Amino acid sequence: MSDSIFSRIIRGEVPCHRVYEDELTIAFLDVNPVAPGHTLVVPKEPAVTLAELSDGSAAALGKVLPRICRAVCKATGATAYNILQNNGVAAHQVVEHVHFHVIPKTDSQGLGINWRPGPLNPEAGAELGRKIARLL
Amino acid sequence: MSDSIFSRIIRGEVPCHRVYEDELTIAFLDVNPVAPGHTLVVPKEPAVTLAELSDGSAAALGKVLPRICRAVCKATGATAYNILQNNGVAAHQVVEHVHFHVIPKTDSQGLGINWRPGPLNPEAGAELGRKIARLL
Repeated sequence: MSDSIFSRIIRGEVPCHRVYEDELTIAFLDVNPVAPGHTLVVPKEPAVTLAELSDGSAAALGKVLPRICRAVCKATGATAYNILQNNGVAAHQVVEHVHFHVIPKTDSQGLGINWRPGPLNPEAGAELGRKIARLL
Repeated sequence: MSDSIFSRIIRGEVPCHRVYEDELTIAFLDVNPVAPGHTLVVPKEPAVTLAELSDGSAAALGKVLPRICRAVCKATGATAYNILQNNGVAAHQVVEHVHFHVIPKTDSQGLGINWRPGPLNPEAGAELGRKIARLL
């Protein structure tokens, strides 16, 4: 469990530009946006990574994300946008409290993605798929 | 509403390396992974973008994401990972059916991110925050 800047925002000890709040979640503007309207959607539960988050908080976050997207798009005029959620320093996580970025995409601003895919080997894929399925 | 390759996978018309399925969601390995264990988590509801997705499907997706993350990490040994969900061609959406990428991060593989933040102007932020909040 974490006591990060987000816990302090949730407790009202640090100000934010809040756009939404309910029993389990809060959403506010990122203070270092990569595009206008860049919003963070955060569970009040202080889990560090998504894998550690409870079912209830995860469902509440999932449910509110489309509403936040609709409002951010209406307010900014964006028609394309990305949802990003990072877990672990190696995966660019900075604040140690689960947060989903809602990032409008414009011609010049937004999330830049480097995508280097390779083909899935059918046999290795089948084996890995079964392995993951057994763990679920 | 869309009838994409994912709808055909959901209907069983196209094979996949399925790792999870319930009434509202399905998860399977990406056939063009950017890292081993790259998994797609997909609502059965054929919404094109997250903003169009129903509350029920969105909550179900949110709830299952931590479980998928735990299983993918256990199966691959990954300790860092990203969740990415793209909406609109400009935001790198390829298949026109909502999907969350679960992407393990290793030293050499995974999601590459270009992040060019700027500071949030306090006055403009306050105004935009109020505008988004009013739309929620």
